Amino acid sequence: MRRQEIAAEFRAIQDSICRQLEALDGTARFGNDPWTRPEGGGGLSRPIADGALIEKGGVNFSEVFGPLSSAAAKSLKIEAHTFYATGVSVVLHARNPWVPTIHMNIRYFEAGDAVNAQQPSLLRENASSGEATNNQRWFGGGIDLTPAYVDQHAAALFHSRLKETCDRWDPRYYPEYKRSADDYFFLPHRNETRGIGGIFFDRLAPSAEHPFDDLFAFTRSIGHLFAGLYAEVAGPVRSKAFTQREKDWQLLRRGRYVEFNLVHDRGTRFGLETGGRTESILMSLPPEASWRYDHHPEDGSPEEQTLAWLRKGVDWSGL
Amino acid sequence: MRRQEIAAEFRAIQDSICRQLEALDGTARFGNDPWTRPEGGGGLSRPIADGALIEKGGVNFSEVFGPLSSAAAKSLKIEAHTFYATGVSVVLHARNPWVPTIHMNIRYFEAGDAVNAQQPSLLRENASSGEATNNQRWFGGGIDLTPAYVDQHAAALFHSRLKETCDRWDPRYYPEYKRSADDYFFLPHRNETRGIGGIFFDRLAPSAEHPFDDLFAFTRSIGHLFAGLYAEVAGPVRSKAFTQREKDWQLLRRGRYVEFNLVHDRGTRFGLETGGRTESILMSLPPEASWRYDHHPEDGSPEEQTLAWLRKGVDWSGL
Repeated sequence: MRRQEIAAEFRAIQDSICRQLEALDGTARFGNDPWTRPEGGGGLSRPIADGALIEKGGVNFSEVFGPLSSAAAKSLKIEAHTFYATGVSVVLHARNPWVPTIHMNIRYFEAGDAVNAQQPSLLRENASSGEATNNQRWFGGGIDLTPAYVDQHAAALFHSRLKETCDRWDPRYYPEYKRSADDYFFLPHRNETRGIGGIFFDRLAPSAEHPFDDLFAFTRSIGHLFAGLYAEVAGPVRSKAFTQREKDWQLLRRGRYVEFNLVHDRGTRFGLETGGRTESILMSLPPEASWRYDHHPEDGSPEEQTLAWLRKGVDWSGL
Repeated sequence: MRRQEIAAEFRAIQDSICRQLEALDGTARFGNDPWTRPEGGGGLSRPIADGALIEKGGVNFSEVFGPLSSAAAKSLKIEAHTFYATGVSVVLHARNPWVPTIHMNIRYFEAGDAVNAQQPSLLRENASSGEATNNQRWFGGGIDLTPAYVDQHAAALFHSRLKETCDRWDPRYYPEYKRSADDYFFLPHRNETRGIGGIFFDRLAPSAEHPFDDLFAFTRSIGHLFAGLYAEVAGPVRSKAFTQREKDWQLLRRGRYVEFNLVHDRGTRFGLETGGRTESILMSLPPEASWRYDHHPEDGSPEEQTLAWLRKGVDWSGL
């Protein structure tokens, strides 16, 4: 399996997602914004805005490579001097406050020119032949959902779909990656999860049990699951009536989304710090967000009930 | 000069600013939200919202002390095991897009139980007597302005006022602290300054030329300058008519304000990472902000002219 084949599959997934989302939205069309990276590689950002369903969002593809700074290597906790990374990343903010914000990402990473004190010559040979060793190439990805109003049944359906897909590959995947999503999509300064989580996996490296091709197939299956899953989530509520009250609450919850992405999200921070393409990185931000000092929803209100759900460890698929 | 006297003066400055701002706004009143910090100290957050002039803002006082973690000491680049810090911090977001967002901060910091390899016993003695050595206590502060639309004359007036105040203490202060503000209030990922800057000083420690009392008086003078300066800035434009176009641009510029505060601002990041009081720290965020993918104002528009001003090194007071 060569890098180029992975990138080609990822690009096809981007294409497929955009086509499905355009059909789902009904009015908005994705833009095409190709970019190149001076140090190597580039990407295709596909923004969307002002749709019937989607107020703002994007489906990004990137394939970047080149020298890895020692600071970046340290932050990744690897020893390498070059890298290759490709991925697809989606965030969709819907207009209707009953429709959750959704995020999907799949990615592949390879470190090159690996330096290992124990077998330096062998590893250098591998690296120069273009093949990284197992622990220096991995997949990552996930899908997670951030509703302004938590609907238990919708949450159960969402998590069940993720579980079904994971279970086809390994029954240990869903529980493990569900827990990772709970841990990752968490705002310590608010003591809240970002939403109802989903799955999040990182550094999934080939093993005897799960060889490289299996991992790639699993990662692709997450990409292919996405658009249909969003249709299932958004479909039943996209035309549900709402008032200013629900819109106001959606904007406050989007404020939390901004806080998570700018303060905590590793990809966003790493990207901004290492001179990534700002517009592509910040495509995840909502069209509008708001903040109020020390806002607390009324006791017993739907808003307060949602806050009560925003904690780690809820067994959504088993509710 | 004892810590308690500094804190008392800072508290009086908070009071005075709130009274003046209430008079200026005409309708809104500051809330009173006292809080305590389990490890030592506390503060008084005074939020304001929905005024005739001020849409959202706050004037915070805090006085916190206790053990300094080694991580925090490292991040401050000092060697100490305890600390004392007191300060006043203001951010005001006006409703009218012609009125700039303004920020003011004054602070005093003292490290205790200093460890110095060269003179450990002497320094420990000083620390245990409650007096920190010169390089372990300092003042900081500043005022900076973030207009959605840059008005050269208003910018010149603003910087001239800062220069006048600085010049009363040392003619080298304004040029140095103006440069520090340009460097500090900068978004590398946007290659933009946050606004038209102002002054920013940090770690201003007593010297033979500027003994402790002088530095304290200089810092107080910045606090006392603030409310009148904001009245001068806001007064001429607070009732100026605007359309949706100016409001939309204000929201986009507020998006940049959010980016700066959550991604770059040292106080915000340090506060959130060390378990500071979230609502007080994030009081600086705007009531509403917006983002659009790769937005560029039209050639020759007032919005584009503003962007052209958002760079370091503009000699505003000399324009």
